[in-house]
Amino acid sequence: MKLERIETPGIAHYAYVLADRGEAAVIDPRRDVDDYLAAARRLGARIRWVVETHRQEDFVMGAAHLAQLTGARVVNGTGDTFGHGDLRLRDGDTFPLGGLTIRALHTPGHTPESASYAVYTDASQPWCVFTGDALFFGTTGRTDLADPARAAENAARLYDAVHEKLGSLPDGTLVFPAHGAGSVCGSGMAERPFSTIGDEKRYNEVFTLGRDAFARRKGGERLPRPPYFRRMEQVNLQGGMPPARPPDAPPLLDADRFAEASAGSTVYDTREPEAFAGGHLPGSLSIWLGGLPVFGGWMADEHTPILLLTDRDGDVDVAAQHLARIGIDGVQGALAGGFGAWRKSGQPIEASGVITPRLLAEQRATFQVLDVRDDDEFGSGHIPGAEHVYVGYLRDRLNGLRIDPQRPVAVTCGVGHRAGIAVSVLLRAGFTDVRNLLGGMTAWKNLGLPLER
Amino acid sequence: MKLERIETPGIAHYAYVLADRGEAAVIDPRRDVDDYLAAARRLGARIRWVVETHRQEDFVMGAAHLAQLTGARVVNGTGDTFGHGDLRLRDGDTFPLGGLTIRALHTPGHTPESASYAVYTDASQPWCVFTGDALFFGTTGRTDLADPARAAENAARLYDAVHEKLGSLPDGTLVFPAHGAGSVCGSGMAERPFSTIGDEKRYNEVFTLGRDAFARRKGGERLPRPPYFRRMEQVNLQGGMPPARPPDAPPLLDADRFAEASAGSTVYDTREPEAFAGGHLPGSLSIWLGGLPVFGGWMADEHTPILLLTDRDGDVDVAAQHLARIGIDGVQGALAGGFGAWRKSGQPIEASGVITPRLLAEQRATFQVLDVRDDDEFGSGHIPGAEHVYVGYLRDRLNGLRIDPQRPVAVTCGVGHRAGIAVSVLLRAGFTDVRNLLGGMTAWKNLGLPLER
Amino acid sequence: MKLERIETPGIAHYAYVLADRGEAAVIDPRRDVDDYLAAARRLGARIRWVVETHRQEDFVMGAAHLAQLTGARVVNGTGDTFGHGDLRLRDGDTFPLGGLTIRALHTPGHTPESASYAVYTDASQPWCVFTGDALFFGTTGRTDLADPARAAENAARLYDAVHEKLGSLPDGTLVFPAHGAGSVCGSGMAERPFSTIGDEKRYNEVFTLGRDAFARRKGGERLPRPPYFRRMEQVNLQGGMPPARPPDAPPLLDADRFAEASAGSTVYDTREPEAFAGGHLPGSLSIWLGGLPVFGGWMADEHTPILLLTDRDGDVDVAAQHLARIGIDGVQGALAGGFGAWRKSGQPIEASGVITPRLLAEQRATFQVLDVRDDDEFGSGHIPGAEHVYVGYLRDRLNGLRIDPQRPVAVTCGVGHRAGIAVSVLLRAGFTDVRNLLGGMTAWKNLGLPLER
Amino acid sequence: MKLERIETPGIAHYAYVLADRGEAAVIDPRRDVDDYLAAARRLGARIRWVVETHRQEDFVMGAAHLAQLTGARVVNGTGDTFGHGDLRLRDGDTFPLGGLTIRALHTPGHTPESASYAVYTDASQPWCVFTGDALFFGTTGRTDLADPARAAENAARLYDAVHEKLGSLPDGTLVFPAHGAGSVCGSGMAERPFSTIGDEKRYNEVFTLGRDAFARRKGGERLPRPPYFRRMEQVNLQGGMPPARPPDAPPLLDADRFAEASAGSTVYDTREPEAFAGGHLPGSLSIWLGGLPVFGGWMADEHTPILLLTDRDGDVDVAAQHLARIGIDGVQGALAGGFGAWRKSGQPIEASGVITPRLLAEQRATFQVLDVRDDDEFGSGHIPGAEHVYVGYLRDRLNGLRIDPQRPVAVTCGVGHRAGIAVSVLLRAGFTDVRNLLGGMTAWKNLGLPLER
Repeated sequence: MKLERIETPGIAHYAYVLADRGEAAVIDPRRDVDDYLAAARRLGARIRWVVETHRQEDFVMGAAHLAQLTGARVVNGTGDTFGHGDLRLRDGDTFPLGGLTIRALHTPGHTPESASYAVYTDASQPWCVFTGDALFFGTTGRTDLADPARAAENAARLYDAVHEKLGSLPDGTLVFPAHGAGSVCGSGMAERPFSTIGDEKRYNEVFTLGRDAFARRKGGERLPRPPYFRRMEQVNLQGGMPPARPPDAPPLLDADRFAEASAGSTVYDTREPEAFAGGHLPGSLSIWLGGLPVFGGWMADEHTPILLLTDRDGDVDVAAQHLARIGIDGVQGALAGGFGAWRKSGQPIEASGVITPRLLAEQRATFQVLDVRDDDEFGSGHIPGAEHVYVGYLRDRLNGLRIDPQRPVAVTCGVGHRAGIAVSVLLRAGFTDVRNLLGGMTAWKNLGLPLER
Repeated sequence: MKLERIETPGIAHYAYVLADRGEAAVIDPRRDVDDYLAAARRLGARIRWVVETHRQEDFVMGAAHLAQLTGARVVNGTGDTFGHGDLRLRDGDTFPLGGLTIRALHTPGHTPESASYAVYTDASQPWCVFTGDALFFGTTGRTDLADPARAAENAARLYDAVHEKLGSLPDGTLVFPAHGAGSVCGSGMAERPFSTIGDEKRYNEVFTLGRDAFARRKGGERLPRPPYFRRMEQVNLQGGMPPARPPDAPPLLDADRFAEASAGSTVYDTREPEAFAGGHLPGSLSIWLGGLPVFGGWMADEHTPILLLTDRDGDVDVAAQHLARIGIDGVQGALAGGFGAWRKSGQPIEASGVITPRLLAEQRATFQVLDVRDDDEFGSGHIPGAEHVYVGYLRDRLNGLRIDPQRPVAVTCGVGHRAGIAVSVLLRAGFTDVRNLLGGMTAWKNLGLPLER
Repeated sequence: MKLERIETPGIAHYAYVLADRGEAAVIDPRRDVDDYLAAARRLGARIRWVVETHRQEDFVMGAAHLAQLTGARVVNGTGDTFGHGDLRLRDGDTFPLGGLTIRALHTPGHTPESASYAVYTDASQPWCVFTGDALFFGTTGRTDLADPARAAENAARLYDAVHEKLGSLPDGTLVFPAHGAGSVCGSGMAERPFSTIGDEKRYNEVFTLGRDAFARRKGGERLPRPPYFRRMEQVNLQGGMPPARPPDAPPLLDADRFAEASAGSTVYDTREPEAFAGGHLPGSLSIWLGGLPVFGGWMADEHTPILLLTDRDGDVDVAAQHLARIGIDGVQGALAGGFGAWRKSGQPIEASGVITPRLLAEQRATFQVLDVRDDDEFGSGHIPGAEHVYVGYLRDRLNGLRIDPQRPVAVTCGVGHRAGIAVSVLLRAGFTDVRNLLGGMTAWKNLGLPLER
Repeated sequence: MKLERIETPGIAHYAYVLADRGEAAVIDPRRDVDDYLAAARRLGARIRWVVETHRQEDFVMGAAHLAQLTGARVVNGTGDTFGHGDLRLRDGDTFPLGGLTIRALHTPGHTPESASYAVYTDASQPWCVFTGDALFFGTTGRTDLADPARAAENAARLYDAVHEKLGSLPDGTLVFPAHGAGSVCGSGMAERPFSTIGDEKRYNEVFTLGRDAFARRKGGERLPRPPYFRRMEQVNLQGGMPPARPPDAPPLLDADRFAEASAGSTVYDTREPEAFAGGHLPGSLSIWLGGLPVFGGWMADEHTPILLLTDRDGDVDVAAQHLARIGIDGVQGALAGGFGAWRKSGQPIEASGVITPRLLAEQRATFQVLDVRDDDEFGSGHIPGAEHVYVGYLRDRLNGLRIDPQRPVAVTCGVGHRAGIAVSVLLRAGFTDVRNLLGGMTAWKNLGLPLER
């Protein structure tokens, strides 16, 4: 028996390739499946099964594509949220892999169809369980996706499923979830490389809290819901979709061609927020490289082509891959040579600006303050008098903001990434003096500056 | 908290880099430490501790070297078998790593000083335990190394230590041993990628057998003891040794130079046994690439330089690295272009030969049969009338063998690798007709040919 | 201006990516175009042109596919042998690339449509010339492909074109041909990394010989013509073809499945000939890995699926790629774990055999000798009394051979690779005692054994 | 015969590995020699000779180290500027490599001992020539290094040597220089991948200009001379020096440790200038990654340890390698996680600032302007009234500057990299309002803003 975990950075997604006696199963593959094929080669196995723990919302699945490429069969549950499955399992049903037996455990709550899959080396006890988004390290998946109004109810349902189906497994059972810390499919995950049922029982809030407390807590989370989740659900109803043909490798354009192309396009500037503040292409949108898998989807507009402006050429394919994984194909092009080529070309550069926490505190009256963190973060303490809107909703709620475009605005988030997005959104909307608070609320708090709750 | 396991192929050795809050510990490093340094870089941590679970016998350790390179401190036990330790722990002592606490657990039996190290994220219960050679997946380390006569006694001691120190840990504790299946430090390990205390309790023979049964079984194992183990112990008493300077990258020699150099050297032919049988350099020693980390040491003679003859140039550095890891530096050179270059040069090639099981069965009377597997393997069933000597001892016991160098000999082992070594040893000793049994005892048994026990 | 040469091993093919001011041209791409795309990324350029010097015979071109992927335009000549060209140039016509000008020079003789392309940095003199198969280092392309009967006539035509069109370029002009030493598109190429017109004038036989002498020499070459050339020409008439979808990565099969699958398939054993001689799967065909790009095509039968048996798993994709490049897709599978897995499985293994030159000389009367080199090689000296047929024609000419299947046969070629193929062909045809002459005619000659001309 | 060119980025240095018949020569190796060893492995050759065309000034050579590692012999000239040579050649002397003959050609002028090495495949004519810094593509090496006062005289001497020794070689001879475009060892090199004597004769200024015109031109260049050149010369007098032991891989430090360590150190911030302007560690020095191989040496102070602050962890080793190649070992550490980790830690961040060309033009009176380009660049046109000092001399000439630290300063260079260095130098010197001119003089000129000459 062999196992490889394959992580998708940016969305903290874990897929798994489990192999035994020359047969492999791939659990929860993403859209670009080469890494799974390579893992199966390394493990000396052919892929026989592709297992879907649930219909993913945060990325395009590769289940149907991988099955088509390899002749593997798709395993999932009986729920309507799966468009197709070659082997549809009810709670307790099993299927074989080499000398192993794999059993489906229905663990709804994150989504109604969510299932876990326990792996047995013999009849007695499981060796591991793939928990999808039902059980993460330290917490569970969020329970508001199916219906925000019933988040607490679904949390209770998930509590029951986890206790009944997973909590009854032996303590020594290894736990392999579909996400690690940093995913938008849940909040508060622990950073640990591996875990077990026994370990989780000791510190995971679904075990340490009582049923009601857990339901209140999980149900009370106010997590943003990226609008592209809807599209992911539609696509994943059909087992996801294959990579674009030709595969996404945006053409590199020189500065003149890039300037021309930018006329009808949205330029995503993937550099860090300080670099954007220090100089950028007028009208470009600042989304740092690591933020593309989420905010690249949030900011995309189906009708406007995307151009990439990166720190260096090596980032272009990473950026395109991040976007392709949430279904955004056909990036029009990227600036060859990164921002340096733009600078060298002598084309127009604009700067936004930054402000230190201390200066903002001193000149508080001069600045309007916009906090673009999520509700929970804002609720935990913010700069007195700050206006609040979550970065994802900013563009649509600009009109409702009590902020004067003609007056200076300081924008803040945790440390500056999301504020960078917001700065560029405001600049595109005609704001004239927009500054990113250096170090964000982390620096503000470290300096002991005043907070309001 | 992050963890990387780094495997050393050929000896199935696992080292670990554990990191938390920017600090890393490396457990049981081998001699060439670049992979650990790279892992620490990936994990964004500086190496603060180098932990030795015990004094290794099967490879040169890199503890002292790694400590010297990084400024890390060496952690080990109080036993005399450690020449130096910056932090010498008794059973129950702890040391910190980032936010973690690591506790030493004395688990002797494989060797007297063997310790395990349990890792705590908080005061209550451990998250994992590094077990060295005390507890493997499915079994324990061998107990005959310190003193073969007291193997059973040491097995009982190990049984007690494992039950008391490791068996008392929670079932959900992850188990990270120093070796996987294929190591010469134990036999009968299970092939599984991860395991837990609970998992091991269910199927590991140290838990499923009673104390006496386990002591009898483990104490009764008749495992070969490579002679270079002695040297490894001496070297590792000082924390191992640094890589050779310059690092071991044998010069590539053309066929003429290689032929010249081979006069006073031993040529290790690292191709597969069929290739050796089909054609080889006269006088060369056949040790397949994957067998070098063990048999390269066994066959080495301190006073004779080594030359490498490989299947392809890409194998040369792998071969040299295998040898360096057991302390054999200064390989004289390797044939540029592999065996193909030899063939092309028109220099002398000799063939040994092979024989199919069916033909051997038919012509049993014509052939002397030599079985070079270990005692346990031989005892489990062999070709009737076969002479037996373990491949490692063959060279020294040639005189005592009841085999006539002038008559045909068929040599066998499991499938043909070790028989290949033996064939080349016999040819060098002047035997004239030596054949490798194709497929070895595996094929013999599959064909239902007669066995003697 | 930047240039990368990308070699295709096995067929000694050179393609080029030339870039200037953000624009790139790819000259003579092969079927799998990823390396060219990557080179263009490295050079910071988008591919604007795909240039075909001529319709290739020895591999599947990627011109049409690359153009389709990138939006580049295909540049070639006016001849009928190009099915499509976006820009069809006559002798002397030019097209721009960045700040460069590229001029077509009609250089027929290898094939009627063959053209060279000279690159000018300014109006005065060229910087380099891409010569396709018209001018190699040290010689020209073969001139027998269009019509063997008119090889000398075409050689004279090529002589004229080279002298007129290329010989008139300045001596300092760099020469970039489509093949290096080892290609089947010509014989006698020099091994040098770079060359110039001046350099070639000094030592290339097309310049050092007179017109008649060159025509006689080139026209008198008796080079084998692989039968798959015909198919390549058909495919390349359309600009080649795209890679298979899914891309060719044969599934790894365990020994049992491989044995099953081998029933209706041809097993290509890609190990070296000694390994095959020392043990192989009964009925398998021996084609060493490096020989697949030529002999894999020669031995293929359109109706029989292919299985791969390699030395190690890492060779599987290389082998499949070699085959795909000559249009052989859909390899059924490969043995997971290489020959070692077969050996370990206990399945049947057969050996052929080898013989040393000295032994063959001593026992010449016992053995029939078959020499499978090409006509020119055979003509240059062979073992007295040897039967001769080129390895590529062996299967079809078995009946005409004066060789008795029931008597021992020694097979020879240059050093043993092609003899290895022939050995396996004879074994499949029912020959019972077939041996590869160790070191082939190279070793035979080195030992000063008797030769017949 | 095979050849690999190995480039050292940042200093545009070319070394070469030339191999023939199993023997290799390495021409002008840098300090870290692994790439040359790997190339020799690829080429199937052992390194027999290490050739020094001259004593390098811009990087630490690896000649002595490479010779010591491989047993190769060092080849150079008879001049005093070589401390040691195993084979010291006078003009016209030769040495063998495989089947090749290599001839030394004395080509002084860049430095007195400079030699070129012509490679002959046979007695008649050379195939290529390694020209060191005597002949580059399009120009020659600078002639002011030995003695700035005699630059014109040395230029004439170089003119003579090039015409006599290199101009007399056949046009078809390939030219392989020691530097490409971007080196500080010369200015005005052409960007082309390969060239020949014939090609150079056509467009290289040493051939297109007359002797006097060339001497005037070359002698009139006012190129900065980095102060670390002196140290390189001293070190290279002994054949360079081996890499540091342990090799330079700075420890990664978390933000707290980095902050502590920064107290007594110089922090090199290797991000792009906009990123530095948008936010940086107070007191840090801005040297973009690609500029380290030159300005890292210029700004270094032997007594102050260096810390690295990068954009991402992957840049740390690149940065350390850049520094090691100019002899700067022992970088104290690097911030784990790059600038993002600093931002996240909530530690102090300061911003400098930027200004657009248009705004500066409008508010010219408000700003002092400092131009830090070299003399030739400044002379070719600058902002009216700009103060000028070359960036390399800024720190030492701060006192003499007519710039008021209390008033706003706009700093400019070509596009902003060197200005970024200058901004950070001024900030460290207590200037309060320092801004990098966005896009530098390139953007200024593109906008048609006023220039003064």
